[in-house]
Amino acid sequence: MQDSIRAVSWTDAGIALLDQRQLPHRAEILVLNTVREVAEAIQRMVVRGAPAIGITAAYAVVLAARGRYAADASRWKHAVAADLALLAGARPTAVNLAWALQRMAALIAQLEGDPGPPLLAEARRIHAEDIAANHRMGELGAAVIESPCEVLTHCNAGALATGGFGTALGVIRSAFTAGKIRCVYADETRPWLQGARLTAWELLQDHIPVKLIADGAATYAMRQGKVRWVIVGADRIAANGDVANKIGTYGLAVSARYHGVGFMVVAPISTLDLGIAHGSHIPIEERGADELVCLGERRVAAAGAGAWNPVFDVTPAELIDVIVTERGVVRAPNREKLAALIATETPPNRA
Amino acid sequence: MQDSIRAVSWTDAGIALLDQRQLPHRAEILVLNTVREVAEAIQRMVVRGAPAIGITAAYAVVLAARGRYAADASRWKHAVAADLALLAGARPTAVNLAWALQRMAALIAQLEGDPGPPLLAEARRIHAEDIAANHRMGELGAAVIESPCEVLTHCNAGALATGGFGTALGVIRSAFTAGKIRCVYADETRPWLQGARLTAWELLQDHIPVKLIADGAATYAMRQGKVRWVIVGADRIAANGDVANKIGTYGLAVSARYHGVGFMVVAPISTLDLGIAHGSHIPIEERGADELVCLGERRVAAAGAGAWNPVFDVTPAELIDVIVTERGVVRAPNREKLAALIATETPPNRA
Repeated sequence: MQDSIRAVSWTDAGIALLDQRQLPHRAEILVLNTVREVAEAIQRMVVRGAPAIGITAAYAVVLAARGRYAADASRWKHAVAADLALLAGARPTAVNLAWALQRMAALIAQLEGDPGPPLLAEARRIHAEDIAANHRMGELGAAVIESPCEVLTHCNAGALATGGFGTALGVIRSAFTAGKIRCVYADETRPWLQGARLTAWELLQDHIPVKLIADGAATYAMRQGKVRWVIVGADRIAANGDVANKIGTYGLAVSARYHGVGFMVVAPISTLDLGIAHGSHIPIEERGADELVCLGERRVAAAGAGAWNPVFDVTPAELIDVIVTERGVVRAPNREKLAALIATETPPNRA
Repeated sequence: MQDSIRAVSWTDAGIALLDQRQLPHRAEILVLNTVREVAEAIQRMVVRGAPAIGITAAYAVVLAARGRYAADASRWKHAVAADLALLAGARPTAVNLAWALQRMAALIAQLEGDPGPPLLAEARRIHAEDIAANHRMGELGAAVIESPCEVLTHCNAGALATGGFGTALGVIRSAFTAGKIRCVYADETRPWLQGARLTAWELLQDHIPVKLIADGAATYAMRQGKVRWVIVGADRIAANGDVANKIGTYGLAVSARYHGVGFMVVAPISTLDLGIAHGSHIPIEERGADELVCLGERRVAAAGAGAWNPVFDVTPAELIDVIVTERGVVRAPNREKLAALIATETPPNRA
């Protein structure tokens, strides 16, 4: 299985991001050296996907700390706080960004001397742990699928959205290898078309059969019996199991329940936000009208048309059959089950 | 209210079609003189929308009969049958096409002498009746809406899809005039973007506030309480009340029911197909993968990605709260109620 797609990697020259706005036409790598560049790259969706954003931000903290330490070794910790704040504000919905920054900040608080090497080691650990978690979730999620079937995914929760391998697409990769998936229906996922541009590309790299559908065709596909499972990622999971994910996810969950189709959310523990009691409190990013009234440079809608462009929505826990994390599978998720999961020790990685 | 948008009109030079593929950028009129050109224009969606297609086909029969009669006045009725078959095969799902052709064929069977003038008069009647039906449906549908609210529509069921005024947008126009609609959410409606390109343009002409949303955002809009009614057109209604309409309609109906949002279908009697017992027997057009893997000329998805592109779906009657026709409003539609509606005489047009 493809494990070589890397949305983000650390190089001696800086943070290397695969510019996802150019895929699948061009695999262009941008190498960034400043926190401001990285924050802008996150905001402009050069890199996207909750875990990938978190990893990118962790590496950006290395850049920030190095620069601040070089400028003033006695006051760098104070100065670097502004960099962390800048990164934290780049996008509001995915919690992995804040999670990675908090983990880096916790280490910063303990450091003495040159912060570069220990912070780089920590960022690399965050990255490696994410990849390992994806492989573990792949195994666990694939085990939930009982027999060969077709599945539907939304947006891109693949190698491109993570440190590597993917969350939802990690499960799909593992289940395909195990002979449990025959074909993947991929929502094209307007307005950014992550399904058409990214998910189809990723799956084709691994020779997994993929059929694109218009987002509006998903419910009809379920009616036609074409789909046994909907498998998606998550940008933030509230303590009660409500899941924020790409706009359109909630509609899929409503339709899946109506048709008796399984609904699986795949996300690492870093996506769980116990500080948010209920999904309704998750901040939902709204982006500009341009993403809807224009296609690329070209205006599609008549001048004067308004738009409402929330780019995430919240799926209530009661519509979710399974949440798959690297620590285990939670069926019919709720506050108690998620609290118990968090309280468990991380099992030894079997991969 | 805007009543001057004309998707199709008859001129001395032939059938004038507003090329809807160019909207809203250019209002280009194509004048067509042959049946072959008209069939191709329907197939390629120069004109679209079930009633508009029916009216266009009726006018095309005038062209056909004139030509065949001029070529051989004794055998023209035999020859024109091939033209009717060509038109009938242009698109499979909307029944108004077959309905209009049957009505023209019934007149042809009775004709003697030059068929041009009587057939043109019949085509003009079909067109005028459609406009009158739309105005009547506008009144009836608006009366169903109890108090000022926001509504959601899908695709384009407006003046552009009909002889004029519109079915779903006719209701929206009438209800807006009556102060019952504050704002219209318009699904952009992939893959052809009829919502973004056509519905937004039509509503703006009438100064009706419109907000475009991604198709995937509709269910979330309902969750947020932004929508009281979903109002859509229809391409064919089976005898049991199942409705074929633009892909995505069925998902809206499932979501509307889940949220207690009203679901209204607006369509003239010509859309009712009593020859089809159940929605599952309605032929559903599937179009090429190109509509999904490309945006205009540009390929979006990686080469090798397949696609499933049904352009209509079927909404079962049990998810429909109201069907509005020019003969009256049917709540909780079923076979018996629709049969009773068909059996009624057309009331005098109050418009």
